[in-house]
Amino acid sequence: MGKMQYDRILLSHGSGGKLSHELIEKIFLPVFRNPLLEPLDDGALIKFESTSLVMTTDSYVVDPIFFPGGDIGKLAVSGTINDLAVMGALPKYLSLGLIIEEGFFLRDLKKIVESIHQTCERAGVQIVTGDTKVVPKGMMDKIFINTSGVGVLQEGFKLTGRLNSGDKIIINGAIGDHGTTILALREGLNLNTPISSDCAPLNGLIQSLLPYGEHIRIMRDPTRGGVATTLNEIAKACHKGLIINQETLPIRKEVQSLCEILGIDPLYMANEGKVIIIASNEVAKEIVSEMGKHPLGEKACIIGEVVEEFSGKVVLETEYGSRRILDMLTGEQLPRIC
Amino acid sequence: MGKMQYDRILLSHGSGGKLSHELIEKIFLPVFRNPLLEPLDDGALIKFESTSLVMTTDSYVVDPIFFPGGDIGKLAVSGTINDLAVMGALPKYLSLGLIIEEGFFLRDLKKIVESIHQTCERAGVQIVTGDTKVVPKGMMDKIFINTSGVGVLQEGFKLTGRLNSGDKIIINGAIGDHGTTILALREGLNLNTPISSDCAPLNGLIQSLLPYGEHIRIMRDPTRGGVATTLNEIAKACHKGLIINQETLPIRKEVQSLCEILGIDPLYMANEGKVIIIASNEVAKEIVSEMGKHPLGEKACIIGEVVEEFSGKVVLETEYGSRRILDMLTGEQLPRIC
Repeated sequence: MGKMQYDRILLSHGSGGKLSHELIEKIFLPVFRNPLLEPLDDGALIKFESTSLVMTTDSYVVDPIFFPGGDIGKLAVSGTINDLAVMGALPKYLSLGLIIEEGFFLRDLKKIVESIHQTCERAGVQIVTGDTKVVPKGMMDKIFINTSGVGVLQEGFKLTGRLNSGDKIIINGAIGDHGTTILALREGLNLNTPISSDCAPLNGLIQSLLPYGEHIRIMRDPTRGGVATTLNEIAKACHKGLIINQETLPIRKEVQSLCEILGIDPLYMANEGKVIIIASNEVAKEIVSEMGKHPLGEKACIIGEVVEEFSGKVVLETEYGSRRILDMLTGEQLPRIC
Repeated sequence: MGKMQYDRILLSHGSGGKLSHELIEKIFLPVFRNPLLEPLDDGALIKFESTSLVMTTDSYVVDPIFFPGGDIGKLAVSGTINDLAVMGALPKYLSLGLIIEEGFFLRDLKKIVESIHQTCERAGVQIVTGDTKVVPKGMMDKIFINTSGVGVLQEGFKLTGRLNSGDKIIINGAIGDHGTTILALREGLNLNTPISSDCAPLNGLIQSLLPYGEHIRIMRDPTRGGVATTLNEIAKACHKGLIINQETLPIRKEVQSLCEILGIDPLYMANEGKVIIIASNEVAKEIVSEMGKHPLGEKACIIGEVVEEFSGKVVLETEYGSRRILDMLTGEQLPRIC
């Protein structure tokens, strides 16, 4: 294992940003390295004779557990479905691992269970196995949920990860809603215009893009660390530069002003119902128009493009034409955001 | 959803015993009911064209996280492998979901990661996907681990769950080691004869029984709730009576005397490297002898048999010929045992 900067776990090790990457690269990967794990994608691609499966896992520790637009149950199902969908898989089966604090109200558990069910129904997936552990009061906070998922790879999505100059970067709607909602709630901010989490299962939307599957290079859901961190991961993995046009970024006014109050850039705010798609220039507009037909893609738009320069970097171009490097999230902006 | 006895989660809801069953039957099953989930086995059987897969999940919250015979990492891998193996599957792929408390020592994380790896190597399984969340200090206790697993069903294991009178109940070794070890450690008991957890992946041992696959009716790992609870689950599901001969029960002297001091019956103590097998009378002795060749089955023996009477019940026959009903665990004997 590699030498780490710190001898204890910091909140930043769970941020999805730089220290998370360090943890994976220095602690986990040297030990667990294998060809299925190594791509470090959102899930693992498993070939089974004729069928290829994708497997993924995610734990959810969001605080508060109920929030405008969703709850920890909806989040846990949506998040794992989205990880499968962006891998080009048709999500099929989920496992449900609950860790619950002693004294947790059953009425709250019922609400969460109902929400999990509704999200599964909506997305057409099934919970096929589960496990519940209860931890004595005070030894944890309320409820943590792990959802692992298995999906069937759809060969129509090529997702080579090979980017060409001129490829377009597409997102299906407004940035930063989930993170801003949770943070505003925790800070007790009283909002004139209420905002809500974008938390949603994206498999239906993504499925509708299968006809363009050969022209889609990569799909990613910009959760922890936000759009900026996800774009950085793509730029690094694909050895290309990504230029983002600030004025095209879809950000709700309410989210923008809250972020200004909180001193946080919405580009680093977690999203839970967004997908970033990089596709060839020739079909980019068609993809945007196709996404526009789906309720979760109405605000889809092109936010930037792939360039030869700035290899491995993300560059934000402002409306005045100035450019600055948009780095990966460093430190922990917001623990327990998902 | 059904009406529950309590309005809050009790530790007993996580015990694997009666209240756990109530939680599953009244809260989870009415909502999530589907044919894959409904058998409520240790994993879900998923048919994929020619290949059938088994999927399972388990979270581990054991306290302390390091103990004689293992640690939370070895436990998490072994437990999920065992759930797959007792379903008749060849365990193949695991996901690893870590939830870590801020401030947790990296040296401890490294030890756990190493232990996870060694257990995977030993069992021939791979970690193919993972996720890490960090929770602020004080909001949880040290580290919780979820492992979900996928295995390939081995058609040679029939595991019909249909029991016949005269079928024999077999176990691969001593009862109660894991639970007693953890409890003694927590109580700070100073032991003359140190005991240690039986925590181990059983897939190799179980695989060696494939030649008897047609004669094995059911396999189960008696973890939370112990042998008594697992036998009760089998008796209820299979509508037969199970008679256990007390004098044949393999229990280490040290475990027996510790259990007496602690006032707990080893039959209710968790095991993490044990499998209960019910097989036809004709091959039972051969199975015991085959198990005896494996390091994890050296102490294998027949502990009882299936009878027509006492349908749905487990009966313990003492050495003096008296009989008493052995009920499922009620209440929570020991939180955070696994």
